[in-house]
Amino acid sequence: MTVDDVPLSPTARTVVMRGRHRAGLERAALLDVLRSARICHIGVIVDGVPRVVPTVFGVDPAGPDREGTLYLHGSVASRSMIDAPDQDICVTATVVDGLVLARSAFHHSMNYRSAVVVGRPRRVEDTDERIRALDAIVDQVVPGRSIHLRSHTRKELAATAVLALSMYEASVKSRSGGPVDDDLDIERGDVWAGVVPVWEALGDAEPAADLAGDIAVPEHVDGVRRNATRG
Amino acid sequence: MTVDDVPLSPTARTVVMRGRHRAGLERAALLDVLRSARICHIGVIVDGVPRVVPTVFGVDPAGPDREGTLYLHGSVASRSMIDAPDQDICVTATVVDGLVLARSAFHHSMNYRSAVVVGRPRRVEDTDERIRALDAIVDQVVPGRSIHLRSHTRKELAATAVLALSMYEASVKSRSGGPVDDDLDIERGDVWAGVVPVWEALGDAEPAADLAGDIAVPEHVDGVRRNATRG
Repeated sequence: MTVDDVPLSPTARTVVMRGRHRAGLERAALLDVLRSARICHIGVIVDGVPRVVPTVFGVDPAGPDREGTLYLHGSVASRSMIDAPDQDICVTATVVDGLVLARSAFHHSMNYRSAVVVGRPRRVEDTDERIRALDAIVDQVVPGRSIHLRSHTRKELAATAVLALSMYEASVKSRSGGPVDDDLDIERGDVWAGVVPVWEALGDAEPAADLAGDIAVPEHVDGVRRNATRG
Repeated sequence: MTVDDVPLSPTARTVVMRGRHRAGLERAALLDVLRSARICHIGVIVDGVPRVVPTVFGVDPAGPDREGTLYLHGSVASRSMIDAPDQDICVTATVVDGLVLARSAFHHSMNYRSAVVVGRPRRVEDTDERIRALDAIVDQVVPGRSIHLRSHTRKELAATAVLALSMYEASVKSRSGGPVDDDLDIERGDVWAGVVPVWEALGDAEPAADLAGDIAVPEHVDGVRRNATRG
């Protein structure tokens, strides 16, 4: 079994509190989790309560913020989008890799990879950066799709809030491998133990009901399925 | 396309702000999302910052709290577990059902189901309820597994914090169906649009390296795979 807590910055709030084996350096692990995750959950304090909302995101490792930029977007009317730039927020992206079934309830676990990015987001006002951010969000879902789409309209841009979060304050936590049981439970030998692998499966692309019959599924849509973790 | 915002209680913080078609009643939708989700993300304010952490959970629709109980657990040393009972927390469980590829970036979306439960958690002190909660958390991952495991030891119970959250303040949000595009983009007819279905796949159970050779994969472990959404 491997449990890795990888704090990517020295600030207290992203240093995982227990099992801290290594400090820093693991930028690649962060980008791997963000590449594998379909959505993230953002935490924003709204009226004193932490609101946790699922959302898509985009990543620009060469973005203008320290250690690159994570982009979020939402309706300009969304409370999370309105309140976020005035506070520190948390973005967590998690990929489940397996169910870890031990001999005891206590040692049950999950194999997973989870990335946490914390910081005060910047509201993106520059039109070119807003467009790059929105394209990055589309391409996070289906790599290479944004270049096939028409330009964003002024009205669409006006209706969309875009936030940028530095990937500087970040940590990655992961677990892999089989169950770790107490010796007595292993000796007793009366319970099956092991791992059930989990991954995200993608099905055949289903054309929209209003799609003209002569438009074939393009390469970039086929590609998203081929690049899925497995299956 | 269907977008449903289903507030299950009349409090402002769980009433989804836009697209509120129906009030109340949809307890079944809440339990469906919680049944389908492998993990949740909990939001707890730690040192003034919303910390969003992935974790497993258990559900007891007949639990002692109003509208039933959602159980969480963690190390007694975890800051999230220590700080949570003195504040309102948010638990969000999300299931991704599809990638919605529209003709424009603006109309790209996800098909998903997301449940949000908000409230001040109760620290569970009663031993019988703590055991029921921990068994519910195991059975959420693999239904029917807890009865095959030995009893929790006193030491294990002492190391584990258990929190109970009423499912009263809750909301469910979901999207299903194909992309909804602007008429002009449909008429132009130059971009493929549709849905790529997404689901959680489970692989063959992999025995632990230290498992005795004569212990076969039990029925309840096979069952978790058969009951997976698809595939």
